[in-house]
Amino acid sequence: MFSIADHTYMTLALRLAERGLYTTQPNPRVGCVIVKNNQIVGQGAHLKAGEPHAEVFALREAGANAEGADAYVTLEPCNHHGRTPPCVDALINARVKRVVVAMQDPNPLVAGNGIKRLQAHGIEVEVGLMEAESKSLNLGFISRMTSALPYVRCKVAASLDGRTALNNGKSLWITGEPARLDVQHWRAQSCAIVTGIGTVLTDNPSMNVRLENTGRQPLRVIVDSNLQTPTDCKMLNPELLSLSPVLVAYAQDAHHKASALTATGAQLLHLPDESGRVNLHALLKNLASRDVNEVLLEAGQGLNGAFLQAGLVDEFIFYYAPKLMGADAKGMFAISELIEMQQATDLQIFDVRQIGQDIRVRAKPVKSKL
Amino acid sequence: MFSIADHTYMTLALRLAERGLYTTQPNPRVGCVIVKNNQIVGQGAHLKAGEPHAEVFALREAGANAEGADAYVTLEPCNHHGRTPPCVDALINARVKRVVVAMQDPNPLVAGNGIKRLQAHGIEVEVGLMEAESKSLNLGFISRMTSALPYVRCKVAASLDGRTALNNGKSLWITGEPARLDVQHWRAQSCAIVTGIGTVLTDNPSMNVRLENTGRQPLRVIVDSNLQTPTDCKMLNPELLSLSPVLVAYAQDAHHKASALTATGAQLLHLPDESGRVNLHALLKNLASRDVNEVLLEAGQGLNGAFLQAGLVDEFIFYYAPKLMGADAKGMFAISELIEMQQATDLQIFDVRQIGQDIRVRAKPVKSKL
Repeated sequence: MFSIADHTYMTLALRLAERGLYTTQPNPRVGCVIVKNNQIVGQGAHLKAGEPHAEVFALREAGANAEGADAYVTLEPCNHHGRTPPCVDALINARVKRVVVAMQDPNPLVAGNGIKRLQAHGIEVEVGLMEAESKSLNLGFISRMTSALPYVRCKVAASLDGRTALNNGKSLWITGEPARLDVQHWRAQSCAIVTGIGTVLTDNPSMNVRLENTGRQPLRVIVDSNLQTPTDCKMLNPELLSLSPVLVAYAQDAHHKASALTATGAQLLHLPDESGRVNLHALLKNLASRDVNEVLLEAGQGLNGAFLQAGLVDEFIFYYAPKLMGADAKGMFAISELIEMQQATDLQIFDVRQIGQDIRVRAKPVKSKL
Repeated sequence: MFSIADHTYMTLALRLAERGLYTTQPNPRVGCVIVKNNQIVGQGAHLKAGEPHAEVFALREAGANAEGADAYVTLEPCNHHGRTPPCVDALINARVKRVVVAMQDPNPLVAGNGIKRLQAHGIEVEVGLMEAESKSLNLGFISRMTSALPYVRCKVAASLDGRTALNNGKSLWITGEPARLDVQHWRAQSCAIVTGIGTVLTDNPSMNVRLENTGRQPLRVIVDSNLQTPTDCKMLNPELLSLSPVLVAYAQDAHHKASALTATGAQLLHLPDESGRVNLHALLKNLASRDVNEVLLEAGQGLNGAFLQAGLVDEFIFYYAPKLMGADAKGMFAISELIEMQQATDLQIFDVRQIGQDIRVRAKPVKSKL
């Protein structure tokens, strides 16, 4: 049983962890609070890969007060030498009395080892306080550790009748500025933005993060089965490319553009499936191998439908603008025609809110892996 | 300036008016509260056409206490002999001191006459307290009085990707039971339910009110340009027909079914437009002439699109189920293809809530008549 005080301190540790939302990638977001005699004596957050972990910052602030103290950590302290020494050693050396952990390390190969080592040194360890909240901060990291796949969010902006573009392709702008700003926050916390060649050819987007001070640009990925990406598209703008690489996944070099695209600085990835399209599962595996935790899919009905049909979407973020565009306009997901209502994909809505004049709905597949 | 007490009493009068939501048709919903020395001495609601008006019930309860009292009425008291004597006379005879009115009679020919007559008898009259709230109770009555058209609500149940049925027509059930129960409440407060022949042929609905104790069934209308309504469809079930008439609006008797349909007890209405379809504006005019205040449109993408394109929808009630059905499935509104984003119909969302597992969104056209 955890006390109210335990919950309060862990809540603070989670708030600290959130500070790394845009910056810790590929590491998880972690926060730590050290408490001695009901007083907070140290706080820390992991903010950037390669920099000290949350526990180290908190222990530094606590100094000698750490001895006999309670440490609240949102993720099991690491027990291995990575880019920094193990936090378990730091906690042992500081002689803390008790460590409260929100969740175990999601990597099944190391999960529990840090906890066991702390216990072996006589430190009392309790696990599972506000575990769900901690998980929700690191869905991508957990997905990559447990399934070697990133966590994929599919963002769709549509009219109230579910239309993402006119039949002629025009779609600027369906949603209002507040909704488009909200999308920037999802981009900023992603390791990679994935779009399709259709969107590149129709909208010519930049797909970068335009928030100030996020300090990091995600990888940008174009799914382009026949390699049609124009060398002069905005995504390949040289200045942008120096901040944020572009990966073009293709199945065949149908237009002999591979060398010209490589010359722009884009990276090419040859991932054909048996039907001559890009193998999306292989693409996600590849992205995970590049330490991509969270993917934001921002595409049209074709690529959205392919991800949906392949069962590769973990979360949907729908923006609905107060507009009606009519049944001739383009839809959200081009998938094989359904014959029975039971074939529809069942989702669970977990968040609904108004953003400016628009509505945002977040939903997960009922058969979700997380 | 109205006082806090004025607002409190008018709020109560509005709550009383709401009691007639399902039953006062074609009359408006009206409530009345009589207050003497800061004490409520009489309350009344109009519950059924032909029965006494709200003021009469409230004055009866107040008795001699009405003399010198304040009367709060949600709608200007009537000044004419209808099925009941004028309420203005009742208020004058009861010697009330002051009458507070939420809104004037919407009929431009009589608006203000009741107020003037009260004033001519030395009664202090104040108008406009919580006018918006009173209007929202009687949108249909107001529409019929001011434009000789009913207030049209278009209800659409869809998946999150805006699909109302599979391509093969299957749609049972998209939304869950709580959402379907919510629809029953919209039906119960409507004077007429309008559907299309497509829905009749595909879903064979009954289109009746299945709530208990609402005491009234709305008129049911089928828009059936070529007169294809099957004589054995559920809407023409004889038992149901005895409680709730069916009107079939058609443009041509292409299948020579007119006499067979009339024989079932259905009323036929020949309302062709120049393109051989039912003239929807003429249909609404006709319904208004039958004292229809509120229409609930429950149709497929064809008739929904025709109503939308004709600018005849006053309010949209969208139910979104947590499902994805894909771009091959049927949409919400079949309208002429749009070429520019500016051609999209702009709506304003004024209510969003979760109903069971589904979401309900209510919206109005930005260019709304009310």
